Amino acid sequence: MSFTRNAEIAQFGGKLFKLSHDLSTTNTKMDVNVFVPTTSGKVPVLLYLSGLTCTPNNASEKSFLQFFAAKYGFAIVFPDTSPRGAKIEGEDESWDFGTGAGFYVDATEEPWLKNYKMYSYVHKELQEKLAEEFPKLDFETISIAGHSMGGFGALSGFFTNPGKYKSVSAWAPIANPLTCPWGKKAFGNYLGSNEELWHKYDPTHLIGTYQHEHQPDILIHQGAADGFYYKDHQLQPEKFVEAAEASNYKGKVDLNVVDGYDHSYFFISSFAEAHAKHHAKHLGLSSSL
Amino acid sequence: MSFTRNAEIAQFGGKLFKLSHDLSTTNTKMDVNVFVPTTSGKVPVLLYLSGLTCTPNNASEKSFLQFFAAKYGFAIVFPDTSPRGAKIEGEDESWDFGTGAGFYVDATEEPWLKNYKMYSYVHKELQEKLAEEFPKLDFETISIAGHSMGGFGALSGFFTNPGKYKSVSAWAPIANPLTCPWGKKAFGNYLGSNEELWHKYDPTHLIGTYQHEHQPDILIHQGAADGFYYKDHQLQPEKFVEAAEASNYKGKVDLNVVDGYDHSYFFISSFAEAHAKHHAKHLGLSSSL
Repeated sequence: MSFTRNAEIAQFGGKLFKLSHDLSTTNTKMDVNVFVPTTSGKVPVLLYLSGLTCTPNNASEKSFLQFFAAKYGFAIVFPDTSPRGAKIEGEDESWDFGTGAGFYVDATEEPWLKNYKMYSYVHKELQEKLAEEFPKLDFETISIAGHSMGGFGALSGFFTNPGKYKSVSAWAPIANPLTCPWGKKAFGNYLGSNEELWHKYDPTHLIGTYQHEHQPDILIHQGAADGFYYKDHQLQPEKFVEAAEASNYKGKVDLNVVDGYDHSYFFISSFAEAHAKHHAKHLGLSSSL
Repeated sequence: MSFTRNAEIAQFGGKLFKLSHDLSTTNTKMDVNVFVPTTSGKVPVLLYLSGLTCTPNNASEKSFLQFFAAKYGFAIVFPDTSPRGAKIEGEDESWDFGTGAGFYVDATEEPWLKNYKMYSYVHKELQEKLAEEFPKLDFETISIAGHSMGGFGALSGFFTNPGKYKSVSAWAPIANPLTCPWGKKAFGNYLGSNEELWHKYDPTHLIGTYQHEHQPDILIHQGAADGFYYKDHQLQPEKFVEAAEASNYKGKVDLNVVDGYDHSYFFISSFAEAHAKHHAKHLGLSSSL
């Protein structure tokens, strides 16, 4: 038995499954939610990566993405943001590192390396396990999106798996973790002091060196009233666009800085339709738009 | 100063205001959320009454009514479900009575009668105060809806204010509180043993005796997999329909028992579009549908 089905909830004509499973990559039990629309036959998949502190439930309850997934005909996978209960000293000390803050990287440093393998988990093991559990889900036709830390994870995962994800989008992504406090803290602890390794995950670095021919347009929304953006400079989407402009990706990053919006799920849900349409188009669902 | 503005959050092009104010009806501070769309000029209002245990935030975060309110051009008022912090002995002892469970009635019994005046609060004082605070909101063009205890409150308030609400709808309403455990407990405590007074609030009793000429069709959704419905018999929408069929309201209650749906916000959001359209039509917004 691969997954425990903790709940199966009807929504928008489809089903939201609340699952948990024991993982070899993270050596812990992981929770994951999956929304499956009623569309007949195989359905493409959107992998949605959440931000700091979130569980799979937050986005499932507040993003409103399922409404559009049901309408356009794709599934959504909502993974957790870190291993939980790994019993590592210090993992629960801060909200921006450790539990709820796995940063979708594979840790190389003690004491994190045994459990904090979120990169391998979300891009590989989770997808393989879900493909077995839900044959209806077509993991060959998959896109990726995320918010904040998850926006970083989505961009990072898109560039490091060239050709795998049909499209990518992000709400308020941590676009240049190499140069912001959240990124430095997480990378320093998970990846150690070798900054070469940090470059492997940094979207702003990655877009500048990306060579693969698969270059779909990238959709980003950023709230102008988001304190992490205009005050704390944790997000820096302009650096990502600047790097894109100096690269092969020139002209293909659609950054929308939207007046008045903050960093919350109210911001995410407000642009859920735009992101869902973006992915539906790239997932071959244009006829449902 | 009537209201304290605790937050002002951009969503779907409009604004969600998180407010609090001190009330003469409840003698406590009350929280209320208000969504105001960007539509120019005066906008009609939907009063949404939440179910047991909820604060104004739950529906604001999870119902997705705002998406449709922004699209069709109406405001939404999300009141709290009871006074909070009235410091009455026993008010926090159970989840289905007292705090979070005001049942939208005016208590007549000690020790509740000084604070638990939710009927006067939601149908009168709150609306008067909000009309002053937000001149944009047209409280002469108002409809009412609710979930569970709030579905009861919506139906009850519609019939006891003939002609006031342009339309009414409910998700899984407590349709016949006179005959269910939740209703008996709440009415017994708030209203005492005089069952005549109970009749004044009971939707199933009220629809049977309603004489006013304003008789818009009533929309109800009920999840077939809702344990409060099929197991505990707390909701009983069929009794309400039965009473309607024997009354002037014959043929005008549209009860939809929907397979697989539970009692949660996943159920509410799944039918938010249908309810929003129902009210938009009655609020004179047909051109936006």
